[in-house]
Amino acid sequence: MLSKPTISLIASLAQKKYRDQHKLFVAEGQKLVAELRARMKPHAIYVTNSEADGELISEAEMKKISFLKTPSEVLGVFHIPPSEKSVAPSENELTLALDGVQDPGNLGTIIRLCDWFGIDTLVCSPHTADCYNPKVVQATMGAIAHVRVVYADLPDFLQKAKTKNIPVYGTFLEGKNIYSEQLSPAGVVVMGSEGQGISPEVEKCVTHKLYIPSFAANRSSESLNVATAAAIACSEFRREWKIES
Amino acid sequence: MLSKPTISLIASLAQKKYRDQHKLFVAEGQKLVAELRARMKPHAIYVTNSEADGELISEAEMKKISFLKTPSEVLGVFHIPPSEKSVAPSENELTLALDGVQDPGNLGTIIRLCDWFGIDTLVCSPHTADCYNPKVVQATMGAIAHVRVVYADLPDFLQKAKTKNIPVYGTFLEGKNIYSEQLSPAGVVVMGSEGQGISPEVEKCVTHKLYIPSFAANRSSESLNVATAAAIACSEFRREWKIES
Repeated sequence: MLSKPTISLIASLAQKKYRDQHKLFVAEGQKLVAELRARMKPHAIYVTNSEADGELISEAEMKKISFLKTPSEVLGVFHIPPSEKSVAPSENELTLALDGVQDPGNLGTIIRLCDWFGIDTLVCSPHTADCYNPKVVQATMGAIAHVRVVYADLPDFLQKAKTKNIPVYGTFLEGKNIYSEQLSPAGVVVMGSEGQGISPEVEKCVTHKLYIPSFAANRSSESLNVATAAAIACSEFRREWKIES
Repeated sequence: MLSKPTISLIASLAQKKYRDQHKLFVAEGQKLVAELRARMKPHAIYVTNSEADGELISEAEMKKISFLKTPSEVLGVFHIPPSEKSVAPSENELTLALDGVQDPGNLGTIIRLCDWFGIDTLVCSPHTADCYNPKVVQATMGAIAHVRVVYADLPDFLQKAKTKNIPVYGTFLEGKNIYSEQLSPAGVVVMGSEGQGISPEVEKCVTHKLYIPSFAANRSSESLNVATAAAIACSEFRREWKIES
């Protein structure tokens, strides 16, 4: 049976403050929990199926601790890995950077995207959503265990990249057509926030402004959703490596 | 002041059953409502700002009728346009088709994507989320007024396309590399649902199987989020037209 303090502890992990305090986060669903267990240290695993590996609890108890509308059979509480104090831009890799992406679903989808496109490091400005928010973790579908997410002062990180002559790309509503540009296989690609796009401070550090052309005659959307724009950008940066003749 | 029946009516529009019965849907936020007003017939517009155009209500009243956590200054109730009974595949256009996409955010994002990429018609299987669900409408950012969304029997629609020799593309985990294939400027592109992908019935109608290559060494995600996969597919189908030398 679940103790009251355990139930309170898990409920508290909806908030960043308590995730930071306890250094724990929640993941739900059989596949996701299995994926994380292969890579990350579990603090506790709760299951409603007696054949599954974990502490058996009732469905009523699972309902109490689950953050999902329809609770699954498995809920895992995992240790948050120690956060990295600093991150250095790499000359040999493609790195994605987020300037204040707020929506947990968007952040989770972008982490999943990084995993798909072999982007090992995602650098987030401090105003970006927390990657251990339960909604983010669910949206990553397990990719959170594979991608290194680092929160850092973005202008500072990008300035270091510029100093090392690493190209810093940014997506804007104007700039050079992403389909026509010769894109570097290594560098940093910055995506702006849902409402504001790339902030003026970060814009100053961008060495290559890009835009994704629109095909609409009467375009209503001012922009693409940030996760779909990131998908198109990652695809453009990576596609050349996968073209078969 | 808002009458009780009005409040109940608006609240009922969270459910498809009542949207279908009243042929009304809700949109919130100044920009979105303005965007829809330019194209669609409003049934009523409620505003909390006396300078805005609409029926003035109090913030407490807005809180009662809003579906958002943080209500905006404007809520519009719009007439659902008459639904089309049938849709014919076009030989001259690129059409997107969804086989059971369930998440309202994904559907809204895909409608926005269609608008961006100049795809006029989105054909949805009957199991796809309802495009007038308030969460879908919000996620479209107004694109719902620009894109024709038709619900139809997908195998039937695709069979008609095949008969007219219109290519039917589908994205799978295997097939031909989307980056290497010569893609037709006109045709149908089918995206599967979040959990199941493309159903066996629909798969039978696909004439060209495509996949988006992954770049991960240790890939955890089995697939991309459907909206990001759709973004990459649309970008690949459209990019050739926008390349500048």
